[in-house]
Amino acid sequence: MSHNTFGHLFRVTTFGESHGPALGCVVDGCPPGLPLVAEDIQAELDRRRPGQSRFTTQRREPDAVRILSGVFEDERTGGQRTTGTPIALVIDNVDQRSKDYSDIRDSFRPGHADYTYDAKYGIRDYRGGGRSSARETAARVAAGAIARKVLPGIAIRGAVVQMGPHRVDRDRWDWDEVGRNPLFCPDPVAAAEWERYLDGIRKEGSSVGAVIEIVAEGAPAGWGAPVYAKLDADIAAAFMSINAVKGVEIGDGFATAALRGEENADEMRPGNGDSPVFLSNRAGGILGGISTGQPIVARFAVKPTSSILQSRRTVTRSGEAADIVTRGRHDPCVGIRAVPVGEAMMACVLADHYLRHRGQVGGGER
Amino acid sequence: MSHNTFGHLFRVTTFGESHGPALGCVVDGCPPGLPLVAEDIQAELDRRRPGQSRFTTQRREPDAVRILSGVFEDERTGGQRTTGTPIALVIDNVDQRSKDYSDIRDSFRPGHADYTYDAKYGIRDYRGGGRSSARETAARVAAGAIARKVLPGIAIRGAVVQMGPHRVDRDRWDWDEVGRNPLFCPDPVAAAEWERYLDGIRKEGSSVGAVIEIVAEGAPAGWGAPVYAKLDADIAAAFMSINAVKGVEIGDGFATAALRGEENADEMRPGNGDSPVFLSNRAGGILGGISTGQPIVARFAVKPTSSILQSRRTVTRSGEAADIVTRGRHDPCVGIRAVPVGEAMMACVLADHYLRHRGQVGGGER
Amino acid sequence: MSHNTFGHLFRVTTFGESHGPALGCVVDGCPPGLPLVAEDIQAELDRRRPGQSRFTTQRREPDAVRILSGVFEDERTGGQRTTGTPIALVIDNVDQRSKDYSDIRDSFRPGHADYTYDAKYGIRDYRGGGRSSARETAARVAAGAIARKVLPGIAIRGAVVQMGPHRVDRDRWDWDEVGRNPLFCPDPVAAAEWERYLDGIRKEGSSVGAVIEIVAEGAPAGWGAPVYAKLDADIAAAFMSINAVKGVEIGDGFATAALRGEENADEMRPGNGDSPVFLSNRAGGILGGISTGQPIVARFAVKPTSSILQSRRTVTRSGEAADIVTRGRHDPCVGIRAVPVGEAMMACVLADHYLRHRGQVGGGER
Amino acid sequence: MSHNTFGHLFRVTTFGESHGPALGCVVDGCPPGLPLVAEDIQAELDRRRPGQSRFTTQRREPDAVRILSGVFEDERTGGQRTTGTPIALVIDNVDQRSKDYSDIRDSFRPGHADYTYDAKYGIRDYRGGGRSSARETAARVAAGAIARKVLPGIAIRGAVVQMGPHRVDRDRWDWDEVGRNPLFCPDPVAAAEWERYLDGIRKEGSSVGAVIEIVAEGAPAGWGAPVYAKLDADIAAAFMSINAVKGVEIGDGFATAALRGEENADEMRPGNGDSPVFLSNRAGGILGGISTGQPIVARFAVKPTSSILQSRRTVTRSGEAADIVTRGRHDPCVGIRAVPVGEAMMACVLADHYLRHRGQVGGGER
Repeated sequence: MSHNTFGHLFRVTTFGESHGPALGCVVDGCPPGLPLVAEDIQAELDRRRPGQSRFTTQRREPDAVRILSGVFEDERTGGQRTTGTPIALVIDNVDQRSKDYSDIRDSFRPGHADYTYDAKYGIRDYRGGGRSSARETAARVAAGAIARKVLPGIAIRGAVVQMGPHRVDRDRWDWDEVGRNPLFCPDPVAAAEWERYLDGIRKEGSSVGAVIEIVAEGAPAGWGAPVYAKLDADIAAAFMSINAVKGVEIGDGFATAALRGEENADEMRPGNGDSPVFLSNRAGGILGGISTGQPIVARFAVKPTSSILQSRRTVTRSGEAADIVTRGRHDPCVGIRAVPVGEAMMACVLADHYLRHRGQVGGGER
Repeated sequence: MSHNTFGHLFRVTTFGESHGPALGCVVDGCPPGLPLVAEDIQAELDRRRPGQSRFTTQRREPDAVRILSGVFEDERTGGQRTTGTPIALVIDNVDQRSKDYSDIRDSFRPGHADYTYDAKYGIRDYRGGGRSSARETAARVAAGAIARKVLPGIAIRGAVVQMGPHRVDRDRWDWDEVGRNPLFCPDPVAAAEWERYLDGIRKEGSSVGAVIEIVAEGAPAGWGAPVYAKLDADIAAAFMSINAVKGVEIGDGFATAALRGEENADEMRPGNGDSPVFLSNRAGGILGGISTGQPIVARFAVKPTSSILQSRRTVTRSGEAADIVTRGRHDPCVGIRAVPVGEAMMACVLADHYLRHRGQVGGGER
Repeated sequence: MSHNTFGHLFRVTTFGESHGPALGCVVDGCPPGLPLVAEDIQAELDRRRPGQSRFTTQRREPDAVRILSGVFEDERTGGQRTTGTPIALVIDNVDQRSKDYSDIRDSFRPGHADYTYDAKYGIRDYRGGGRSSARETAARVAAGAIARKVLPGIAIRGAVVQMGPHRVDRDRWDWDEVGRNPLFCPDPVAAAEWERYLDGIRKEGSSVGAVIEIVAEGAPAGWGAPVYAKLDADIAAAFMSINAVKGVEIGDGFATAALRGEENADEMRPGNGDSPVFLSNRAGGILGGISTGQPIVARFAVKPTSSILQSRRTVTRSGEAADIVTRGRHDPCVGIRAVPVGEAMMACVLADHYLRHRGQVGGGER
Repeated sequence: MSHNTFGHLFRVTTFGESHGPALGCVVDGCPPGLPLVAEDIQAELDRRRPGQSRFTTQRREPDAVRILSGVFEDERTGGQRTTGTPIALVIDNVDQRSKDYSDIRDSFRPGHADYTYDAKYGIRDYRGGGRSSARETAARVAAGAIARKVLPGIAIRGAVVQMGPHRVDRDRWDWDEVGRNPLFCPDPVAAAEWERYLDGIRKEGSSVGAVIEIVAEGAPAGWGAPVYAKLDADIAAAFMSINAVKGVEIGDGFATAALRGEENADEMRPGNGDSPVFLSNRAGGILGGISTGQPIVARFAVKPTSSILQSRRTVTRSGEAADIVTRGRHDPCVGIRAVPVGEAMMACVLADHYLRHRGQVGGGER
């Protein structure tokens, strides 16, 4: 990862600010011949789109994506397919309300990147947070939709497993439930409780954090590489680059610190064919930075939305004390819409590692 | 990060296996004119070196480093200095005991990378874990010693804050204590308790995990960049690439998920000169991926050493069930020696971001 | 350079096909605070734009550029300025004539990339050459306009120095003349002769090659770096990546092979201030891959346009013999419009090396 | 290419100065399972080694290479093989004559990188040119020996085709002749004439340039990629990065500028199987940056050695006028030993593109 690009062979470059004309991305290195139409991407974008429930920002953005390049309607292969050249995607910003931005122009919102952008660049597009807005994640989701095409047979799903201090009961985990409630919660009981809880938070003008879990099933053993190309290191960077993320863990993560060796290491027994069966998956499907063939399990923690209706102490751009209240349209828990974003990042990382693995180790074909 | 290289302008490539002739690294992009002799690097290596207490592996490696290139004795500037060309460092492996490796050659040790390397490459140097051995981290520590030279005025320190289930009492935190006990523990009371605890673990032939905290003080506001060049994303990748690490967090990390917005966002008040004073540091010194000027605080979780004296179920390379006991010389808590490694990774990441910042924005001369 | 991206700190990613909806680029890593409006870019695009004389393709493309991100109207600094975030530029394709493409769909045009794209990807956008069209160079010119902003005080100019077998007389070299004739020729006598010559070529339905020289004046000594970051190596790659280029040389280039050491090496004498005066510039301003402070002089050879009205032998996609005539709108000498493209590539390479130099060594503020 | 590294999947990092303790490289990303012993590499190094005839420097360096990592003696696959981890190679410098370097310490040798290194870094290892010495190319040749292993069935050969003003007669081209004379000349008549010519140059204390041609046969169609991953762009950068190179061309190169379209574009006819037969190879085996399946033909021009026995005007480090004579051990034509270097660079570029192609397009295996 560097600049505004991530990935090595499956490479994604994103651009755009919250209130500029458009945002988007260029997906470069995609294998040729994959069926791809805008609707494939739109379906993923719609899962992240704001304004779909009272628990997300009321900004109305259709997030309609256009494909500018990299696909071709080919009668020989049938339908529109990727050509192997860069795929440029653009999403126009539509609902940039005209408003008075003088507050956030002159004062730094606590918890936001206002001060740090200013300290770095001396200039910033302060409207809606500019480049630091979570709106950038739409481009990731779009790229992730393409990455999924590169990974047939691999299911990548995510869920909110903790909202504020409240965790799901894993005995009630139901993947189908995730799509039924507006909180991406896999536990129907927790989902109902969380809705009430979050309504309270929202009405108080406050916000709350969350933990999201992403699971990828179907990846074979062997993806990833030593030492600075470890699959888990790339997942960690990918997740930590998402807005408001403050922690990442793989498998049992921080809990492993309290374990003893015999509790932690996943034992093996012969399985069907070449692959062993692991008797547990504390490793989260990754050992030595390389996939084991088990489900890849990773989590990330999202801090509470920093835009709240309560008055906060800050300083102005000219260095004077000030108080600031962040009015406007905000998610009471920005972690909710982070679920499709986390899935997209996992998909992009896996697509990249799949191609990198094939490059180095291949099938020996020439 | 990719392959066996990390960093963009301050770039480190490491090589070597646990039981090969040597390991080392090439540090490329180092600014010219920095005083550098082997002793500077050796001092850091000695902090990570095995065999210094009963709590680390008894393998006897002097870890003596040689500089092969990139420095020059220059009478004009005085003393030996970096020239701006790549600095190659080599550490010979000395204590590769001849032993019978047929156990680990034919069976996959649970929790280790044996199976995944085999699944990926079809061949592996099984002696001592080969490339997946934590011995590789010596090269990181060597590179980190150079990175520190690039960062005058920035103090980078680390400590073990949790061993097994036991945490330090932060009210007793004393940086000086870290160097006084063999566990890199900043709490003298905990240090004594942990020694007894770890003796028990060791005698049982077991192992335990740990959490390490790394703090960098003195970095100015403005390092890091949107979106895939975020300082925290690079720290996350750097830490997660360390052997046995399963989780990474910045500032309050996973704990922020349970907070409310008004608890989490660090307020500001006017400070001396241009910079504001932050009234707390839950952000760990990073907002929007860019440093705030506060101390940069990050932690990582290390799983318990997988090499234990207890019999574990596994499979052989040919797919048959087997039991395996990992005899030999091992750290009962591999997290201990991870402290200088974590410091080194933080130093390398910061050196890289310092140069990248200077490249794009200029100024910031140190 | 890799994929569809070049540059390390000043990084350009281009996308788009000849007959798709649009082409463009993302310029990432640009320093903040530079004044930039679309008109700055448009002025450079207009120099490359087709249809401006009878010597270039009659395709009518306004090549109107839109800036989607990375700039902000800031009352504090005055006017629209770069913010340090990625600058996305889009140019819509307007004049994609509907026509029958079955000829080039089914047969490979000699000298074009039709066969190689097909061999690689198994699918290609055959309309106008798709991604292999020289239309992609519009994105380079747009990026180059931004690069020039990064390089105040550096003049980057280009000219056609050979058309077919005819060379300019360097004694008549006049940079002002380059803008006065449609052939970017610096020699007014040659310009007139070449117009007649090229009219003949055009009427015969043939084409001809050219050599372009690019000169950058004002770059200080010290840009570039050993060994795989040499300034001349990056210029060579940048030029060779331009469509139809088959050769690149620096300074006296291939002619140096016939020289003796005492003829070739540029002698020095004391100059004003710190810098020496070179008594000649056979090196083209680069020694050891690093700029000397003299003008940087490079040339590239462009092969004749492969699209000609004469019947050529080829094969069809299904492997049968065929004859093909490439009708349509083509440049009789594609080298002419390569002049602004070469200038743009030189500007991008220099901007990148300026930032890279500043990153490693600091100072050099412009 | 950047810093001291080139390649993307097959990645080579070199280090070392002419008179430091050692030089070498790290080859990262090599596929696993390839048979590799030091002797394989030594054989290539011996072709480049100095002191083998009166036409190369009399410095006596055995150039003995040691493999520090990345290979393993595996009884299962038989013999020593690559493991997929980084392969570190070290060559000790042996014949660093103690001498008085005050001349080149204080004065800049014309045509050398002395001044530019000093201008960039403010410090340089002046002994034998330090990092800018052609001695660095030994590391390339070592890496190239590994690259050849990645490319079974591809023959990569080189020859000197022009020495000073004298060219070979291509009608007398005999690849076997290249190994029979000390000048890597494929024309036996020219070889004899060149020996006499070069003896004269040498006795006069002068030097002369050369043109080297590298041909790779056996690469399939489809390697390379649009637009900044073109195979010819990577070859151009690879060759231009070799010491003293001032020009690069592919196929007919600069000569194509004087051709007409119908002369230049290589026609096709049906061949055996899927591939067409090209009726000529002016393109040098590359169209649109992608290999055609024909032999890949490239050339580079090497300027005359700048170290000559004639007095040259220069300036001292403190800015005073001086005269300098470069005594010592030098090649009268540095282009001769550039032949194995050019071959090695071609091999590395092709190995990298082979893996990159396999990564993106693969054989569809999973």
